Amino acid sequence: MTQTYVQSAAAALVELRRQRPLVHNITNYVVMDFSANALLAIGASPVMAHAADEVREMVALAGALVLNIGTLSPPWIEAMFAAGHAAGARRLPVILDPVGAGATRLRTDTALRLLDEIKPTIVRANASEILSLAAAGGATKGVDATRGVDEARDTAIAIARHAGAVVAVTGAEDFITDGERRLRVGNGHPLMARVTGTGCVCSALVGAFAAVEPDTLRATIATLIVYGIAGELAAEGDPRPGTFRTRLIDALDAVTPEEVMARARLTAE
Amino acid sequence: MTQTYVQSAAAALVELRRQRPLVHNITNYVVMDFSANALLAIGASPVMAHAADEVREMVALAGALVLNIGTLSPPWIEAMFAAGHAAGARRLPVILDPVGAGATRLRTDTALRLLDEIKPTIVRANASEILSLAAAGGATKGVDATRGVDEARDTAIAIARHAGAVVAVTGAEDFITDGERRLRVGNGHPLMARVTGTGCVCSALVGAFAAVEPDTLRATIATLIVYGIAGELAAEGDPRPGTFRTRLIDALDAVTPEEVMARARLTAE
Amino acid sequence: MTQTYVQSAAAALVELRRQRPLVHNITNYVVMDFSANALLAIGASPVMAHAADEVREMVALAGALVLNIGTLSPPWIEAMFAAGHAAGARRLPVILDPVGAGATRLRTDTALRLLDEIKPTIVRANASEILSLAAAGGATKGVDATRGVDEARDTAIAIARHAGAVVAVTGAEDFITDGERRLRVGNGHPLMARVTGTGCVCSALVGAFAAVEPDTLRATIATLIVYGIAGELAAEGDPRPGTFRTRLIDALDAVTPEEVMARARLTAE
Repeated sequence: MTQTYVQSAAAALVELRRQRPLVHNITNYVVMDFSANALLAIGASPVMAHAADEVREMVALAGALVLNIGTLSPPWIEAMFAAGHAAGARRLPVILDPVGAGATRLRTDTALRLLDEIKPTIVRANASEILSLAAAGGATKGVDATRGVDEARDTAIAIARHAGAVVAVTGAEDFITDGERRLRVGNGHPLMARVTGTGCVCSALVGAFAAVEPDTLRATIATLIVYGIAGELAAEGDPRPGTFRTRLIDALDAVTPEEVMARARLTAE
Repeated sequence: MTQTYVQSAAAALVELRRQRPLVHNITNYVVMDFSANALLAIGASPVMAHAADEVREMVALAGALVLNIGTLSPPWIEAMFAAGHAAGARRLPVILDPVGAGATRLRTDTALRLLDEIKPTIVRANASEILSLAAAGGATKGVDATRGVDEARDTAIAIARHAGAVVAVTGAEDFITDGERRLRVGNGHPLMARVTGTGCVCSALVGAFAAVEPDTLRATIATLIVYGIAGELAAEGDPRPGTFRTRLIDALDAVTPEEVMARARLTAE
Repeated sequence: MTQTYVQSAAAALVELRRQRPLVHNITNYVVMDFSANALLAIGASPVMAHAADEVREMVALAGALVLNIGTLSPPWIEAMFAAGHAAGARRLPVILDPVGAGATRLRTDTALRLLDEIKPTIVRANASEILSLAAAGGATKGVDATRGVDEARDTAIAIARHAGAVVAVTGAEDFITDGERRLRVGNGHPLMARVTGTGCVCSALVGAFAAVEPDTLRATIATLIVYGIAGELAAEGDPRPGTFRTRLIDALDAVTPEEVMARARLTAE
């Protein structure tokens, strides 16, 4: 079964580069440049817009909406809800990245409200963030510390079922679930954790794949495979983190469907 | 005739590096780092400031003001008008980059209001953005799609005449006009379109050249030639976009007046 | 005496990489990505958060707070005071970087108010900025032009005594004082002035060292030595500024305690 997901990942990469979907990002200040360059490198077209006055119009031009709650403030929260509702009305894929959920109430509450009201198509987060969203799945809330993907597995499944979303927990190994199907992607490289915003970039790329692959589980898996392989390619020769960041953008441009087929490490539970 | 423009481009580069003008940018979040590093690399001194409380004072220290409407929001619009009026009172060059005009009403309207009230010295934009500003020149408004420079040529001339500004439409070939004179710059490289903010950086660099070259048409032509050559130098060896971005900064530092004389591709219509 | 400072610098680097302290930055838009990557490269953990609603909670998770007044606006000033008071209550190191103080009243006044009310542990600035803060030390106020470290020496000592802070004036040579002890660090490279945000990154790194080294004078000296050596390593082979910026991040990852011992250029007055 996993082989068909890998094939659809390679096909989605081809389709992404053919369609060049516009991905609308309401994201944090730290990663805007990196996310925009990553989207351009993979073959998509990025736009960043956050004024409540214009996000509805921008959503109407976009193939996907990415909501990232890092460096949050009240006007941005307002824009996220306005854009999220507009995207929902257009049945556009909405990706939620709950950056720092669990660290402050503002972030946890905003993530939970977005989950509840906007009903994102896909949630991409690390294990600590997923665990902090547990309330949405009826499980125990909490978490300050860094946790492993295995600890967040059951919570991810519960959130996926409760919210009707695909949930991806990324880490050394990635776990992806739609509440029923459960898969793991082993691609990636530890250097990705040494560069700021690699998680945020992953969420932006999920937006690009979801814009061209209607099956959101497949779109998410495709992203994690392609991005993980790009990380592996960029890490060849053991660069330091500054050089690695530059090469990661290069690798997103260079990665081929053939490399996706040959290097994907996808397993079903 | 074009040869004198090329000579003044080379001379402006020398003068820029001698004077190191302070360029005040009110620009979008995505490109702040890239723009500041590009300005430093070419030899100018960047400052980013957007608080309505301080922009008038910052303008008083600057040699040029760059207004870029990407990632717009109400406080930034207010700051742009305050800074723009202060710059006008000091007869400082004001460069308008109407990023995303045509995509949303907020952007189109803000660009048109800035054009009308601030009367920028120079407008730098892509063809779609120029076409969306057509109302300012009395022509038809509109445009969502990506357009070519030739399609925007007549509109650019109309805006230049109506607004009393130099208008530069950048693309595979660049078109520059003050409403009467019409020139084209053929320098540049397709990789520039694969990196976010290369258009915004161009507008920032126009600010640097306009701060040292009083003839705004010559300043704009100088920028497009020098920046285009830097793009060509950075593209040598066919790098991928991450590496190209780093080399573009390197090339802005490295490009010489001699290379400007030897490599400029400028034609008059 | 200086040898014990160098030894504690090497020890602090080891400790920083062991503890991986969380450094909370309320900083300007231009340098967020660069600062976060520099903190990750040296071995710390960065967080950027500026919403008045969440900064108190974020401070409670952090080992140091860095307040940087570039690209200032009223909501950010409010957040800086909220975070600064919370940090003070927790006796957390607070680093103030008065970017652009002297250029506008908003910046000068905000820097002086932060100095007065928040009582930062460490102030890191260039000579012009330090001189503009002179009012806090009872000396003459002023300054628009770029000044040398020697000109700011007496003012730095006065501010250190008045504010009870360590003051570091960085430039070709760095001057560090707690009002009594006076030291100079000769490490660094002129290319650092050709990249935007290298001063801001220095302040962020001071936060990382101050989170693990309780003696704030030693923490500041350690930062200036380590960062200066990283600049020297990155400058090997005379790269252009784009490449230098990438290598500076690499060098922050690569620099060893042994290199600190071997290459430190520290003198006492």
